[in-house]
Amino acid sequence: MGSLKLHHELENDSHMMVIPLDPEEFRRQGHMLIDFIADYYQNIESYKVLSQVEPGYLKKLLPESAPYYPESIETILQDVRKYIIPGITHWQSPNYFAYFPSSGSTAGFLGEILSTGFNVVGFNWMSSPAATELECVVMDWLGEMLMLPKSFLFKGTTCEAILCTLAAARDQMLNRCGSEKMEKLVVYGSDQTHSALQKAAQIAGIHTKNFRSSHQNYEVKLVHADVEAGLVPFFLCATVGTTSTNAIDPIGPLCEVAKDFNIWVHADAAYAGSACICPKFQATDSKLVVDYKDWQITLSRRFRAMKLWLVLRSYGVANLRNFLRSHVKMAKLFEELLRNDNRFEVVAPRNFALETRKKEVLPWPNDNNVANQVECANELNKKLLESINGSGNVYMSSTMVDGAYIIISIGQSPQYALGQGPDC
Amino acid sequence: MGSLKLHHELENDSHMMVIPLDPEEFRRQGHMLIDFIADYYQNIESYKVLSQVEPGYLKKLLPESAPYYPESIETILQDVRKYIIPGITHWQSPNYFAYFPSSGSTAGFLGEILSTGFNVVGFNWMSSPAATELECVVMDWLGEMLMLPKSFLFKGTTCEAILCTLAAARDQMLNRCGSEKMEKLVVYGSDQTHSALQKAAQIAGIHTKNFRSSHQNYEVKLVHADVEAGLVPFFLCATVGTTSTNAIDPIGPLCEVAKDFNIWVHADAAYAGSACICPKFQATDSKLVVDYKDWQITLSRRFRAMKLWLVLRSYGVANLRNFLRSHVKMAKLFEELLRNDNRFEVVAPRNFALETRKKEVLPWPNDNNVANQVECANELNKKLLESINGSGNVYMSSTMVDGAYIIISIGQSPQYALGQGPDC
Repeated sequence: MGSLKLHHELENDSHMMVIPLDPEEFRRQGHMLIDFIADYYQNIESYKVLSQVEPGYLKKLLPESAPYYPESIETILQDVRKYIIPGITHWQSPNYFAYFPSSGSTAGFLGEILSTGFNVVGFNWMSSPAATELECVVMDWLGEMLMLPKSFLFKGTTCEAILCTLAAARDQMLNRCGSEKMEKLVVYGSDQTHSALQKAAQIAGIHTKNFRSSHQNYEVKLVHADVEAGLVPFFLCATVGTTSTNAIDPIGPLCEVAKDFNIWVHADAAYAGSACICPKFQATDSKLVVDYKDWQITLSRRFRAMKLWLVLRSYGVANLRNFLRSHVKMAKLFEELLRNDNRFEVVAPRNFALETRKKEVLPWPNDNNVANQVECANELNKKLLESINGSGNVYMSSTMVDGAYIIISIGQSPQYALGQGPDC
Repeated sequence: MGSLKLHHELENDSHMMVIPLDPEEFRRQGHMLIDFIADYYQNIESYKVLSQVEPGYLKKLLPESAPYYPESIETILQDVRKYIIPGITHWQSPNYFAYFPSSGSTAGFLGEILSTGFNVVGFNWMSSPAATELECVVMDWLGEMLMLPKSFLFKGTTCEAILCTLAAARDQMLNRCGSEKMEKLVVYGSDQTHSALQKAAQIAGIHTKNFRSSHQNYEVKLVHADVEAGLVPFFLCATVGTTSTNAIDPIGPLCEVAKDFNIWVHADAAYAGSACICPKFQATDSKLVVDYKDWQITLSRRFRAMKLWLVLRSYGVANLRNFLRSHVKMAKLFEELLRNDNRFEVVAPRNFALETRKKEVLPWPNDNNVANQVECANELNKKLLESINGSGNVYMSSTMVDGAYIIISIGQSPQYALGQGPDC
């Protein structure tokens, strides 16, 4: 490319034979990489799904400093095979049932690669109109698919959505009741609310003693108590599909109370696969174009729409729906197997077909002390999960609910079927 | 892949012939995409560097809803050529001299593709040890290259770095002087400080009337005035290489004052190419492993280290240094051309060899009113830049300094030479 050739001519250093963006070299190395990744997926089931490395393994294997002279792509890919792949927990493996569901799809990957290839910095409309406008278009498509009103706004990540809405709600409330009330502001969530809420509240400057983590939807009582104590409730996070038990908070009743006290209700449906929810900012109303930098924490924005566009077009709404239905079927099948096995107990209703849980309940300890029984059951469940994950053949996660240790097996989620990346 | 074949078997819907992660299909489409991007760079100089589209152009060209049935990758890539490329401002073009420098490199792209390919969600060590550990290794490499002390910590983006340090400084100060002082906290920057500071202050809950944007380093006077007024100065952002004039704030003197009042000094060197600066959080000291989710706003983290690793290894420190030196030479050359042309004036010193500026000063209007002269010169500069950018052959940006409209031409930056993406 012009500028790089010029810089090449300016240099007489023999090491400067490298031209950072030579199209033919990109082509050669790019094809190698595509084959590398295709081979990885061809063989993914042969790897231990949960990485078996010890903390600090990589530092011992790699040099202490960056290389002074260039190394070939062949050498580098060899090291990826030898040093990196053993340290990877294979999220896209069919044997992966922990944390979030697998999200990979060919179309999703190609969209990422294309977005990377153009490498535009979409911080305002002019900086690359197509990046902003394609995002508007595919977000409308997605909103329609989710049957969301037009006024909804999509944020980059769940964490960012919660922080931005929390800051907006905070300023709205302070405008109403005066900035001196800042330290009186109270945020509400349940003990199953995602940790992103607590992090967001801290960043937004909400006093830690004013963060309420309610047990079993006692938010309403807490709100009344806080108001009597002279505090200012302003933000309530209800969850549609908690990460732990996939529970659904009673949004209706919560909104009723919220209305009485002008509390902003944020419905976090990220895990259940709905897009992030956040009322449209007034600032953008009158604008001819959208500058995404005003909607988010960072200035610039990846050409992320390219990815969703490719996913929606490559599979079509029909396939994406079928894809989810098929995973509902798989989850139901798995649930049936568990219900017909008296060693296991399904301890939470299967919502969204994203999860089933199993809990070892036998054998009981030989005494009538319930506490001991629970403790023993927890111990057995823990051992069971350790042996399952230790094998490296399957990876599942766990949670604690009402003092009970529960094993979680996670299926596919709409969000991921739509090919969203790991920015959650 | 297993799970997907199973889900395929569960479905009798003819549309479900698509298998989202079939390695051979990924291989076929991946190779097509690599050629598509290689061809894009082969022809990049043939495109108008600044997109010539009108706002709303894309909505008219694309369907109102997501397609119900799948479309082929061939069709999609055809649409990318027809509808997307005309709407792209070509940041990687050798004719692009606006905003940030071009950042693309083959190794950077391959690193992104590899990171995308593994698609791991690195929110804690266990979720993919290699992602966390490789980041530690390459950040040490980079720190050594930049001769930074070991205690430095790298954030995902400049904006995130400023917000996280601001929140940490805020809580540190409130612990010292009491949370009721929240609305008294004052943040200081210069009128050339990046807008990220103001955004961060707003998110962190700093009262808007307590945000000081000082002109020509009057921060010291402002601090004394605020202390006398009973306010609490707590955060000062000094910039090493402002985005507008690439000016360097007098860090030494500022730190002296800051020390007297326990003010946290944040040095923003993002644009000058240094990595983000942010004191190590105490919380991570005792940990055996690092959980990056505790260091950032979002929960998860891309496998970004893969990109920097490939860049450092593919080019080596020697080439990266030469790469920067060659751009210093180009900037010097350009500056000489301007100095030898009496129609132009270089109005700000060329720092870091990242920029030169030129300002149309002739012809002067035929009166002695200086205000009119400045206005007229500004008008001429504006017209000049519009005609340059309007041609679509070159893209440059502008800034206002002391009421003067100045045209900016931006070269290459170390940060970008290191292959960092557009997440700044």
